[in-house]
Amino acid sequence: METLFVIKIGGNIIDDEKKLALFIKDFAAIDGTKILIHGGGKLATRVAEAMGIQQQMVEGRRITDAETLKVVTMVYAGAINKNIVAQLQANGCNALGLCGADANIIQAHKRKIKISSAGGSLEEAIDYGFVGDVDSVNTSVINTLLQQNLTLVLSPITHDKEGVLLNTNADTIAQEVTKAMCNFYDVQLIYSFEKEGVLLNVNDDNSVILKLTKDYYEELKNPTLNGGEATIFAGMIPKLDNAFAALANGVQKVIIGKAEKLHQLLQGEAGTTIVIK
Amino acid sequence: METLFVIKIGGNIIDDEKKLALFIKDFAAIDGTKILIHGGGKLATRVAEAMGIQQQMVEGRRITDAETLKVVTMVYAGAINKNIVAQLQANGCNALGLCGADANIIQAHKRKIKISSAGGSLEEAIDYGFVGDVDSVNTSVINTLLQQNLTLVLSPITHDKEGVLLNTNADTIAQEVTKAMCNFYDVQLIYSFEKEGVLLNVNDDNSVILKLTKDYYEELKNPTLNGGEATIFAGMIPKLDNAFAALANGVQKVIIGKAEKLHQLLQGEAGTTIVIK
Repeated sequence: METLFVIKIGGNIIDDEKKLALFIKDFAAIDGTKILIHGGGKLATRVAEAMGIQQQMVEGRRITDAETLKVVTMVYAGAINKNIVAQLQANGCNALGLCGADANIIQAHKRKIKISSAGGSLEEAIDYGFVGDVDSVNTSVINTLLQQNLTLVLSPITHDKEGVLLNTNADTIAQEVTKAMCNFYDVQLIYSFEKEGVLLNVNDDNSVILKLTKDYYEELKNPTLNGGEATIFAGMIPKLDNAFAALANGVQKVIIGKAEKLHQLLQGEAGTTIVIK
Repeated sequence: METLFVIKIGGNIIDDEKKLALFIKDFAAIDGTKILIHGGGKLATRVAEAMGIQQQMVEGRRITDAETLKVVTMVYAGAINKNIVAQLQANGCNALGLCGADANIIQAHKRKIKISSAGGSLEEAIDYGFVGDVDSVNTSVINTLLQQNLTLVLSPITHDKEGVLLNTNADTIAQEVTKAMCNFYDVQLIYSFEKEGVLLNVNDDNSVILKLTKDYYEELKNPTLNGGEATIFAGMIPKLDNAFAALANGVQKVIIGKAEKLHQLLQGEAGTTIVIK
Protein backbone atom coordinates (compact mmCIF):
# COMPACT_ATOMS: atom_id res chain seq x y z
CA MET A 1 0.00 0.00 0.00
CA GLU A 2 1.04 3.57 -0.63
CA THR A 3 2.19 5.55 2.42
CA LEU A 4 0.04 8.38 3.79
CA PHE A 5 1.64 10.80 6.23
CA VAL A 6 -0.79 12.30 8.74
CA ILE A 7 1.06 15.06 10.53
CA LYS A 8 -0.28 17.00 13.50
CA ILE A 9 1.39 20.31 14.28
CA GLY A 10 1.13 21.73 17.78
CA GLY A 11 0.12 25.18 18.96
CA ASN A 12 3.56 26.42 20.03
CA ILE A 13 4.89 26.08 16.48
CA ILE A 14 1.86 27.88 15.05
CA ASP A 15 2.48 30.77 17.44
CA ASP A 16 6.06 31.19 16.21
CA GLU A 17 6.09 32.72 12.71
CA LYS A 18 9.67 31.67 11.89
CA LYS A 19 9.35 28.12 13.20
CA LEU A 20 6.06 27.75 11.33
CA ALA A 21 7.62 28.94 8.06
CA LEU A 22 10.47 26.41 8.43
CA PHE A 23 8.05 23.63 9.30
CA ILE A 24 5.88 24.45 6.27
CA LYS A 25 8.94 24.35 4.00
CA ASP A 26 9.90 20.92 5.38
CA PHE A 27 6.34 19.64 5.18
CA ALA A 28 5.93 20.83 1.58
CA ALA A 29 9.12 18.97 0.66
CA ILE A 30 7.81 15.58 1.84
CA ASP A 31 7.47 13.48 -1.27
CA GLY A 32 4.18 11.62 -0.95
CA THR A 33 0.55 11.79 0.01
CA LYS A 34 0.00 13.86 3.12
CA ILE A 35 -2.51 15.45 5.47
CA LEU A 36 -1.65 18.26 7.89
CA ILE A 37 -3.76 18.76 11.01
CA HIS A 38 -3.24 21.92 13.00
CA GLY A 39 -4.26 23.00 16.47
CA GLY A 40 -5.00 26.49 17.59
CA GLY A 41 -2.14 28.17 19.39
CA LYS A 42 -2.59 31.30 21.42
CA LEU A 43 -4.24 33.41 18.73
CA ALA A 44 -7.75 32.31 19.73
CA THR A 45 -7.10 33.37 23.34
CA ARG A 46 -5.68 36.71 22.17
CA VAL A 47 -8.66 37.39 19.88
CA ALA A 48 -11.14 36.38 22.60
CA GLU A 49 -9.39 38.68 25.10
CA ALA A 50 -9.30 41.56 22.63
CA MET A 51 -13.03 41.09 22.03
CA GLY A 52 -13.74 40.96 25.75
CA ILE A 53 -14.98 37.37 25.68
CA GLN A 54 -14.40 35.72 29.04
CA GLN A 55 -12.71 32.33 28.88
CA GLN A 56 -14.35 29.86 31.23
CA MET A 57 -12.15 27.01 32.41
CA VAL A 58 -13.41 23.90 34.23
CA GLU A 59 -10.92 21.29 35.46
CA GLY A 60 -8.22 22.80 33.25
CA ARG A 61 -10.35 22.63 30.11
CA ARG A 62 -11.68 25.56 28.19
CA ILE A 63 -15.47 25.71 27.91
CA THR A 64 -16.56 26.51 24.36
CA ASP A 65 -19.59 28.77 24.78
CA ALA A 66 -21.34 30.29 21.73
CA GLU A 67 -19.05 33.34 21.61
CA THR A 68 -15.89 31.26 22.03
CA LEU A 69 -17.10 28.95 19.23
CA LYS A 70 -17.30 31.97 16.90
CA VAL A 71 -13.75 32.93 17.85
CA VAL A 72 -12.24 29.46 17.37
CA THR A 73 -14.08 29.06 14.06
CA MET A 74 -12.65 32.37 12.85
CA VAL A 75 -9.15 31.68 14.12
CA TYR A 76 -8.73 27.95 13.41
CA ALA A 77 -10.72 27.55 10.16
CA GLY A 78 -10.00 31.09 8.94
CA ALA A 79 -6.78 32.79 10.03
CA ILE A 80 -4.57 29.79 10.80
CA ASN A 81 -5.88 27.38 8.17
CA LYS A 82 -5.74 29.84 5.27
CA ASN A 83 -2.32 31.19 6.25
CA ILE A 84 -0.90 27.67 6.31
CA VAL A 85 -2.54 26.90 2.94
CA ALA A 86 -1.18 30.10 1.34
CA GLN A 87 2.33 29.35 2.64
CA LEU A 88 2.17 25.75 1.41
CA GLN A 89 1.08 27.04 -2.02
CA ALA A 90 4.08 29.38 -1.99
CA ASN A 91 6.27 26.31 -1.37
CA GLY A 92 4.83 24.45 -4.35
CA CYS A 93 2.52 22.21 -2.31
CA ASN A 94 -1.04 22.13 -3.67
CA ALA A 95 -2.84 22.48 -0.33
CA LEU A 96 -6.57 22.54 0.30
CA GLY A 97 -7.80 23.72 3.71
CA LEU A 98 -10.87 22.16 5.25
CA CYS A 99 -12.87 21.97 8.44
CA GLY A 100 -15.01 18.99 9.32
CA ALA A 101 -18.15 20.56 7.82
CA ASP A 102 -16.53 20.88 4.38
CA ALA A 103 -17.78 18.04 2.20
CA ASN A 104 -18.98 16.55 5.50
CA ILE A 105 -15.46 15.29 6.07
CA ILE A 106 -15.71 14.91 9.86
CA GLN A 107 -19.07 14.55 11.51
CA ALA A 108 -19.34 14.84 15.27
CA HIS A 109 -21.87 15.32 18.05
CA LYS A 110 -21.92 17.86 20.84
CA ARG A 111 -20.29 16.30 23.88
CA LYS A 112 -22.78 15.05 26.44
CA ILE A 113 -22.87 16.85 29.76
CA LYS A 114 -20.51 15.06 32.10
CA ILE A 115 -21.30 14.38 35.74
CA SER A 116 -18.15 14.83 37.77
CA SER A 117 -17.62 14.48 41.49
CA ALA A 118 -16.09 17.85 42.28
CA GLY A 119 -13.61 17.49 45.13
CA GLY A 120 -14.60 13.86 45.51
CA SER A 121 -17.92 14.63 47.13
CA LEU A 122 -20.55 16.79 45.39
CA GLU A 123 -21.68 15.71 41.97
CA GLU A 124 -21.57 18.47 39.41
CA ALA A 125 -22.64 18.59 35.77
CA ILE A 126 -19.93 19.86 33.43
CA ASP A 127 -21.14 21.28 30.13
CA TYR A 128 -18.15 21.73 27.84
CA GLY A 129 -20.37 23.67 25.44
CA PHE A 130 -19.82 23.42 21.68
CA VAL A 131 -17.22 20.67 21.86
CA GLY A 132 -17.44 17.85 19.35
CA ASP A 133 -16.77 14.15 19.78
CA VAL A 134 -16.07 12.55 16.39
CA ASP A 135 -18.63 10.12 14.93
CA SER A 136 -17.32 9.54 11.42
CA VAL A 137 -14.60 10.40 8.95
CA ASN A 138 -15.63 10.57 5.28
CA THR A 139 -12.86 8.47 3.74
CA SER A 140 -14.49 8.51 0.32
CA VAL A 141 -14.14 12.30 -0.10
CA ILE A 142 -10.66 12.30 1.45
CA ASN A 143 -9.55 9.59 -1.01
CA THR A 144 -10.96 11.51 -3.97
CA LEU A 145 -9.19 14.72 -2.95
CA LEU A 146 -5.87 12.96 -2.23
CA GLN A 147 -6.06 11.27 -5.64
CA GLN A 148 -6.10 14.76 -7.18
CA ASN A 149 -2.64 15.24 -5.66
CA LEU A 150 -4.10 17.70 -3.18
CA THR A 151 -2.56 18.00 0.29
CA LEU A 152 -5.30 18.40 2.88
CA VAL A 153 -4.95 20.87 5.75
CA LEU A 154 -7.52 20.18 8.46
CA SER A 155 -8.59 22.63 11.13
CA PRO A 156 -10.05 21.18 14.33
CA ILE A 157 -13.62 22.37 13.77
CA THR A 158 -16.25 19.71 13.08
CA HIS A 159 -20.03 19.83 12.65
CA ASP A 160 -23.10 17.83 13.68
CA LYS A 161 -24.79 17.79 10.23
CA GLU A 162 -27.56 19.88 11.80
CA GLY A 163 -25.88 23.22 11.18
CA VAL A 164 -23.85 23.44 14.37
CA LEU A 165 -20.06 23.80 14.27
CA LEU A 166 -18.09 22.15 17.07
CA ASN A 167 -14.66 22.75 18.57
CA THR A 168 -12.72 19.47 18.51
CA ASN A 169 -9.36 18.40 19.87
CA ALA A 170 -6.79 18.38 17.06
CA ASP A 171 -4.95 15.32 18.44
CA THR A 172 -8.25 13.44 18.33
CA ILE A 173 -8.87 14.57 14.72
CA ALA A 174 -5.39 13.28 13.81
CA GLN A 175 -6.10 9.95 15.45
CA GLU A 176 -9.57 9.52 13.92
CA VAL A 177 -8.40 10.45 10.41
CA THR A 178 -5.46 8.08 10.76
CA LYS A 179 -7.64 5.21 11.95
CA ALA A 180 -10.13 5.74 9.12
CA MET A 181 -7.50 6.01 6.39
CA CYS A 182 -5.69 2.79 7.47
CA ASN A 183 -7.92 0.76 5.21
CA PHE A 184 -6.55 2.54 2.13
CA TYR A 185 -3.00 3.53 2.99
CA ASP A 186 -0.02 2.45 5.03
CA VAL A 187 -0.49 5.35 7.46
CA GLN A 188 2.26 6.98 9.50
CA LEU A 189 1.01 9.36 12.18
CA ILE A 190 3.40 12.09 13.32
CA TYR A 191 2.70 14.37 16.29
CA SER A 192 5.14 17.24 15.86
CA PHE A 193 5.49 19.82 18.60
CA GLU A 194 8.04 21.82 20.59
CA LYS A 195 9.67 18.90 22.45
CA GLU A 196 12.25 16.39 21.25
CA GLY A 197 9.91 13.47 21.87
CA VAL A 198 8.71 11.48 24.86
CA LEU A 199 11.29 12.27 27.53
CA LEU A 200 12.38 10.05 30.40
CA ASN A 201 13.19 13.21 32.32
CA VAL A 202 10.92 16.12 31.41
CA ASN A 203 13.74 18.58 32.15
CA ASP A 204 16.32 16.87 29.96
CA ASP A 205 15.88 17.18 26.20
CA ASN A 206 18.52 14.50 25.73
CA SER A 207 16.46 11.87 27.54
CA VAL A 208 14.30 11.01 24.51
CA ILE A 209 12.84 7.52 24.54
CA LEU A 210 13.64 6.30 21.03
CA LYS A 211 11.20 3.40 21.01
CA LEU A 212 8.15 3.15 23.22
CA THR A 213 6.19 -0.10 23.40
CA LYS A 214 2.85 -0.55 25.13
CA ASP A 215 4.42 -2.55 27.99
CA TYR A 216 7.17 0.02 28.53
CA TYR A 217 4.54 2.81 28.50
CA GLU A 218 2.46 1.09 31.20
CA GLU A 219 5.59 0.68 33.27
CA LEU A 220 6.65 4.32 32.92
CA LYS A 221 3.29 5.76 33.88
CA ASN A 222 2.81 3.49 36.87
CA PRO A 223 4.06 5.27 39.99
CA THR A 224 4.30 2.09 42.06
CA LEU A 225 6.90 0.74 39.65
CA ASN A 226 8.98 3.92 39.76
CA GLY A 227 9.63 4.71 43.37
CA GLY A 228 6.31 6.51 43.82
CA GLU A 229 6.65 8.81 40.83
CA ALA A 230 5.31 8.38 37.31
CA THR A 231 8.04 9.01 34.73
CA ILE A 232 5.79 10.12 31.86
CA PHE A 233 4.86 13.78 31.99
CA ALA A 234 1.12 14.01 32.68
CA GLY A 235 0.49 16.32 29.70
CA MET A 236 1.85 13.62 27.42
CA ILE A 237 -0.56 10.92 28.57
CA PRO A 238 -3.61 11.84 26.40
CA LYS A 239 -1.30 12.07 23.37
CA LEU A 240 0.20 8.65 24.07
CA ASP A 241 -3.17 7.08 24.81
CA ASN A 242 -4.28 8.42 21.41
CA ALA A 243 -1.15 6.99 19.81
CA PHE A 244 -1.69 3.50 21.24
CA ALA A 245 -5.38 3.63 20.31
CA ALA A 246 -4.33 4.42 16.73
CA LEU A 247 -1.85 1.51 16.69
CA ALA A 248 -4.53 -0.84 18.03
CA ASN A 249 -6.64 0.22 15.03
CA GLY A 250 -4.08 -0.71 12.40
CA VAL A 251 -1.86 2.35 12.10
CA GLN A 252 1.68 1.25 11.26
CA LYS A 253 3.69 3.71 13.28
CA VAL A 254 3.25 6.79 15.47
CA ILE A 255 6.12 9.22 15.82
CA ILE A 256 6.26 12.04 18.38
CA GLY A 257 8.94 14.71 18.15
CA LYS A 258 10.20 18.19 17.43
CA ALA A 259 8.57 20.04 14.55
CA GLU A 260 11.95 21.50 13.49
CA LYS A 261 13.22 17.96 12.85
CA LEU A 262 10.39 16.75 10.64
CA HIS A 263 12.57 14.95 8.12
CA GLN A 264 14.64 13.25 10.84
CA LEU A 265 11.41 12.17 12.52
CA LEU A 266 10.24 10.57 9.28
CA GLN A 267 13.60 8.79 8.92
CA GLY A 268 13.46 7.51 12.52
CA GLU A 269 16.55 9.59 13.35
CA ALA A 270 14.83 11.76 15.96
CA GLY A 271 11.82 11.69 18.24
CA THR A 272 10.02 8.76 19.81
CA THR A 273 8.66 5.97 17.65
CA ILE A 274 5.67 4.32 19.22
CA VAL A 275 4.87 0.73 18.43
CA ILE A 276 2.65 -1.93 20.00
CA LYS A 277 5.62 -4.18 20.77
CA MET B 1 -24.05 22.05 -22.05
CA GLU B 2 -25.08 21.48 -18.46
CA THR B 3 -26.17 24.56 -16.51
CA LEU B 4 -23.98 25.94 -13.73
CA PHE B 5 -25.51 28.44 -11.32
CA VAL B 6 -23.04 30.94 -9.88
CA ILE B 7 -24.83 32.79 -7.11
CA LYS B 8 -23.41 35.76 -5.24
CA ILE B 9 -25.03 36.61 -1.91
CA GLY B 10 -24.69 40.13 -0.53
CA GLY B 11 -23.63 41.33 2.88
CA ASN B 12 -27.04 42.46 4.12
CA ILE B 13 -28.43 38.94 3.86
CA ILE B 14 -25.40 37.48 5.63
CA ASP B 15 -25.95 39.92 8.52
CA ASP B 16 -29.54 38.73 8.98
CA GLU B 17 -29.60 35.28 10.57
CA LYS B 18 -33.21 34.49 9.57
CA LYS B 19 -32.91 35.73 5.99
CA LEU B 20 -29.64 33.82 5.61
CA ALA B 21 -31.24 30.60 6.88
CA LEU B 22 -34.11 30.97 4.39
CA PHE B 23 -31.72 31.77 1.55
CA ILE B 24 -29.58 28.73 2.39
CA LYS B 25 -32.67 26.51 2.37
CA ASP B 26 -33.66 27.85 -1.07
CA PHE B 27 -30.12 27.58 -2.41
CA ALA B 28 -29.74 23.99 -1.16
CA ALA B 29 -32.97 23.09 -2.98
CA ILE B 30 -31.68 24.19 -6.41
CA ASP B 31 -31.41 21.05 -8.46
CA GLY B 32 -28.14 21.30 -10.35
CA THR B 33 -24.49 22.21 -10.25
CA LYS B 34 -23.88 25.35 -8.23
CA ILE B 35 -21.31 27.68 -6.71
CA LEU B 36 -22.10 30.16 -3.92
CA ILE B 37 -19.95 33.26 -3.48
CA HIS B 38 -20.40 35.28 -0.34
CA GLY B 39 -19.33 38.75 0.70
CA GLY B 40 -18.51 39.94 4.14
CA GLY B 41 -21.31 41.78 5.84
CA LYS B 42 -20.84 43.83 8.95
CA LEU B 43 -19.20 41.14 11.09
CA ALA B 44 -15.68 42.10 9.92
CA THR B 45 -16.28 45.71 10.96
CA ARG B 46 -17.67 44.60 14.32
CA VAL B 47 -14.72 42.29 14.99
CA ALA B 48 -12.21 44.97 13.93
CA GLU B 49 -13.91 47.52 16.21
CA ALA B 50 -13.99 45.09 19.12
CA MET B 51 -10.27 44.43 18.62
CA GLY B 52 -9.53 48.14 18.45
CA ILE B 53 -8.33 48.01 14.84
CA GLN B 54 -8.89 51.36 13.15
CA GLN B 55 -10.62 51.18 9.77
CA GLN B 56 -8.98 53.48 7.24
CA MET B 57 -11.19 54.65 4.40
CA VAL B 58 -9.95 56.40 1.24
CA GLU B 59 -12.44 57.61 -1.38
CA GLY B 60 -15.15 55.45 0.20
CA ARG B 61 -13.07 52.30 0.05
CA ARG B 62 -11.73 50.42 3.01
CA ILE B 63 -7.95 50.09 3.12
CA THR B 64 -6.89 46.55 3.96
CA ASP B 65 -3.83 46.95 6.17
CA ALA B 66 -2.10 43.90 7.70
CA GLU B 67 -4.36 43.86 10.78
CA THR B 68 -7.54 44.28 8.73
CA LEU B 69 -6.40 41.44 6.45
CA LYS B 70 -6.18 39.16 9.50
CA VAL B 71 -9.71 40.16 10.49
CA VAL B 72 -11.27 39.65 7.04
CA THR B 73 -9.47 36.31 6.65
CA MET B 74 -10.89 35.17 10.00
CA VAL B 75 -14.37 36.47 9.34
CA TYR B 76 -14.86 35.71 5.62
CA ALA B 77 -12.89 32.45 5.23
CA GLY B 78 -13.59 31.28 8.80
CA ALA B 79 -16.77 32.43 10.52
CA ILE B 80 -19.02 33.19 7.54
CA ASN B 81 -17.77 30.52 5.14
CA LYS B 82 -17.91 27.65 7.65
CA ASN B 83 -21.30 28.69 9.02
CA ILE B 84 -22.77 28.70 5.52
CA VAL B 85 -21.17 25.33 4.78
CA ALA B 86 -22.51 23.79 8.02
CA GLN B 87 -26.02 25.10 7.30
CA LEU B 88 -25.92 23.82 3.70
CA GLN B 89 -24.85 20.42 5.02
CA ALA B 90 -27.82 20.51 7.42
CA ASN B 91 -30.03 21.11 4.35
CA GLY B 92 -28.66 18.09 2.53
CA CYS B 93 -26.36 20.06 0.22
CA ASN B 94 -22.82 18.66 0.13
CA ALA B 95 -20.98 21.98 0.40
CA LEU B 96 -17.24 22.56 0.42
CA GLY B 97 -15.95 25.96 1.53
CA LEU B 98 -12.88 27.45 -0.10
CA CYS B 99 -10.85 30.60 -0.34
CA GLY B 100 -8.73 31.42 -3.38
CA ALA B 101 -5.59 29.92 -1.82
CA ASP B 102 -7.25 26.51 -1.44
CA ALA B 103 -6.07 24.26 -4.27
CA ASN B 104 -4.84 27.53 -5.80
CA ILE B 105 -8.39 28.14 -7.02
CA ILE B 106 -8.07 31.91 -7.46
CA GLN B 107 -4.68 33.51 -7.89
CA ALA B 108 -4.37 37.27 -7.66
CA HIS B 109 -1.80 40.01 -7.24
CA LYS B 110 -1.67 42.84 -4.73
CA ARG B 111 -3.28 45.89 -6.31
CA LYS B 112 -0.74 48.37 -7.62
CA ILE B 113 -0.59 51.72 -5.85
CA LYS B 114 -2.93 54.07 -7.67
CA ILE B 115 -2.06 57.68 -8.44
CA SER B 116 -5.18 59.79 -8.00
CA SER B 117 -5.62 63.52 -8.41
CA ALA B 118 -7.13 64.41 -5.05
CA GLY B 119 -9.56 67.29 -5.47
CA GLY B 120 -8.51 67.59 -9.11
CA SER B 121 -5.13 69.12 -8.33
CA LEU B 122 -2.59 67.35 -6.15
CA GLU B 123 -1.54 63.89 -7.21
CA GLU B 124 -1.74 61.38 -4.41
CA ALA B 125 -0.69 57.74 -4.22
CA ILE B 126 -3.44 55.48 -2.89
CA ASP B 127 -2.28 52.19 -1.43
CA TYR B 128 -5.30 49.94 -0.90
CA GLY B 129 -3.10 47.54 1.06
CA PHE B 130 -3.72 43.79 0.87
CA VAL B 131 -6.33 43.96 -1.87
CA GLY B 132 -6.17 41.41 -4.66
CA ASP B 133 -6.88 41.79 -8.37
CA VAL B 134 -7.64 38.40 -9.91
CA ASP B 135 -5.14 36.87 -12.37
CA SER B 136 -6.50 33.37 -12.87
CA VAL B 137 -9.26 30.94 -11.93
CA ASN B 138 -8.26 27.27 -11.73
CA THR B 139 -11.08 25.73 -13.78
CA SER B 140 -9.48 22.29 -13.72
CA VAL B 141 -9.79 21.95 -9.92
CA ILE B 142 -13.26 23.54 -9.90
CA ASN B 143 -14.43 21.05 -12.55
CA THR B 144 -13.02 18.10 -10.62
CA LEU B 145 -14.74 19.19 -7.41
CA LEU B 146 -18.07 19.91 -9.13
CA GLN B 147 -17.95 16.48 -10.78
CA GLN B 148 -17.88 15.00 -7.27
CA ASN B 149 -21.33 16.57 -6.75
CA LEU B 150 -19.81 19.06 -4.36
CA THR B 151 -21.30 22.55 -4.09
CA LEU B 152 -18.52 25.10 -3.76
CA VAL B 153 -18.81 28.01 -1.32
CA LEU B 154 -16.21 30.67 -2.07
CA SER B 155 -15.08 33.37 0.34
CA PRO B 156 -13.60 36.54 -1.20
CA ILE B 157 -10.02 35.94 -0.03
CA THR B 158 -7.44 35.18 -2.71
CA HIS B 159 -3.65 34.70 -2.62
CA ASP B 160 -0.60 35.65 -4.67
CA LYS B 161 1.07 32.18 -4.69
CA GLU B 162 3.87 33.75 -2.66
CA GLY B 163 2.23 33.19 0.70
CA VAL B 164 0.22 36.42 0.91
CA LEU B 165 -3.56 36.37 1.32
CA LEU B 166 -5.52 39.19 -0.35
CA ASN B 167 -8.92 40.74 0.27
CA THR B 168 -10.89 40.66 -2.98
CA ASN B 169 -14.25 42.06 -4.03
CA ALA B 170 -16.85 39.27 -3.97
CA ASP B 171 -18.70 40.63 -7.04
CA THR B 172 -15.43 40.44 -8.97
CA ILE B 173 -14.84 36.87 -7.79
CA ALA B 174 -18.34 35.97 -9.02
CA GLN B 175 -17.65 37.55 -12.40
CA GLU B 176 -14.21 35.96 -12.83
CA VAL B 177 -15.42 32.50 -11.83
CA THR B 178 -18.38 32.85 -14.18
CA LYS B 179 -16.21 33.95 -17.12
CA ALA B 180 -13.75 31.10 -16.56
CA MET B 181 -16.43 28.42 -16.23
CA CYS B 182 -18.25 29.47 -19.43
CA ASN B 183 -16.08 27.13 -21.45
CA PHE B 184 -17.47 24.11 -19.62
CA TYR B 185 -21.00 25.03 -18.60
CA ASP B 186 -23.97 27.09 -19.67
CA VAL B 187 -23.44 29.56 -16.80
CA GLN B 188 -26.13 31.67 -15.17
CA LEU B 189 -24.81 34.36 -12.84
CA ILE B 190 -27.16 35.57 -10.11
CA TYR B 191 -26.39 38.55 -7.88
CA SER B 192 -28.81 38.20 -4.97
CA PHE B 193 -29.07 40.98 -2.45
CA GLU B 194 -31.57 43.04 -0.43
CA LYS B 195 -33.21 44.89 -3.35
CA GLU B 196 -35.84 43.70 -5.82
CA GLY B 197 -33.51 44.24 -8.77
CA VAL B 198 -32.33 47.18 -10.83
CA LEU B 199 -34.84 49.92 -10.04
CA LEU B 200 -35.93 52.77 -12.31
CA ASN B 201 -36.69 54.74 -9.16
CA VAL B 202 -34.40 53.83 -6.29
CA ASN B 203 -37.15 54.66 -3.78
CA ASP B 204 -39.78 52.47 -5.42
CA ASP B 205 -39.38 48.72 -5.05
CA ASN B 206 -42.07 48.24 -7.69
CA SER B 207 -40.02 49.98 -10.38
CA VAL B 208 -37.92 46.90 -11.20
CA ILE B 209 -36.52 46.86 -14.74
CA LEU B 210 -37.35 43.33 -15.88
CA LYS B 211 -34.96 43.24 -18.80
CA LEU B 212 -31.89 45.41 -19.15
CA THR B 213 -29.96 45.48 -22.42
CA LYS B 214 -26.60 47.17 -22.96
CA ASP B 215 -28.17 50.02 -24.98
CA TYR B 216 -30.88 50.63 -22.39
CA TYR B 217 -28.23 50.62 -19.64
CA GLU B 218 -26.13 53.26 -21.42
CA GLU B 219 -29.22 55.38 -21.84
CA LEU B 220 -30.25 55.09 -18.18
CA LYS B 221 -26.85 56.03 -16.79
CA ASN B 222 -26.34 58.97 -19.14
CA PRO B 223 -27.54 62.16 -17.42
CA THR B 224 -27.79 64.15 -20.68
CA LEU B 225 -30.43 61.75 -21.96
CA ASN B 226 -32.49 61.94 -18.77
CA GLY B 227 -33.11 65.57 -18.06
CA GLY B 228 -29.78 66.02 -16.28
CA GLU B 229 -30.13 63.08 -13.91
CA ALA B 230 -28.81 59.55 -14.24
CA THR B 231 -31.54 57.02 -13.49
CA ILE B 232 -29.34 54.16 -12.36
CA PHE B 233 -28.39 54.31 -8.70
CA ALA B 234 -24.63 54.96 -8.53
CA GLY B 235 -24.00 52.03 -6.17
CA MET B 236 -25.42 49.70 -8.80
CA ILE B 237 -23.01 50.76 -11.56
CA PRO B 238 -19.98 48.58 -10.62
CA LYS B 239 -22.33 45.57 -10.32
CA LEU B 240 -23.86 46.25 -13.74
CA ASP B 241 -20.49 46.92 -15.36
CA ASN B 242 -19.42 43.54 -13.96
CA ALA B 243 -22.58 41.95 -15.34
CA PHE B 244 -22.07 43.29 -18.87
CA ALA B 245 -18.38 42.32 -18.76
CA ALA B 246 -19.47 38.78 -17.90
CA LEU B 247 -21.99 38.73 -20.78
CA ALA B 248 -19.31 39.99 -23.18
CA ASN B 249 -17.22 36.99 -22.11
CA GLY B 250 -19.82 34.36 -22.95
CA VAL B 251 -22.02 34.15 -19.86
CA GLN B 252 -25.58 33.34 -20.91
CA LYS B 253 -27.53 35.43 -18.48
CA VAL B 254 -27.03 37.64 -15.44
CA ILE B 255 -29.87 38.07 -12.97
CA ILE B 256 -29.95 40.67 -10.20
CA GLY B 257 -32.60 40.52 -7.49
CA LYS B 258 -33.81 39.86 -3.98
CA ALA B 259 -32.19 36.99 -2.10
CA GLU B 260 -35.56 36.00 -0.58
CA LYS B 261 -36.90 35.32 -4.10
CA LEU B 262 -34.11 33.06 -5.30
CA HIS B 263 -36.37 30.54 -7.03
CA GLN B 264 -38.41 33.26 -8.76
CA LEU B 265 -35.16 34.87 -9.90
CA LEU B 266 -34.07 31.59 -11.47
CA GLN B 267 -37.46 31.24 -13.19
CA GLY B 268 -37.27 34.81 -14.53
CA GLU B 269 -40.34 35.72 -12.43
CA ALA B 270 -38.56 38.34 -10.33
CA GLY B 271 -35.52 40.61 -10.47
CA THR B 272 -33.74 42.11 -13.45
CA THR B 273 -32.45 39.90 -16.22
CA ILE B 274 -29.43 41.41 -17.92
CA VAL B 275 -28.70 40.53 -21.52
CA ILE B 276 -26.50 42.03 -24.25
CA LYS B 277 -29.49 42.81 -26.44
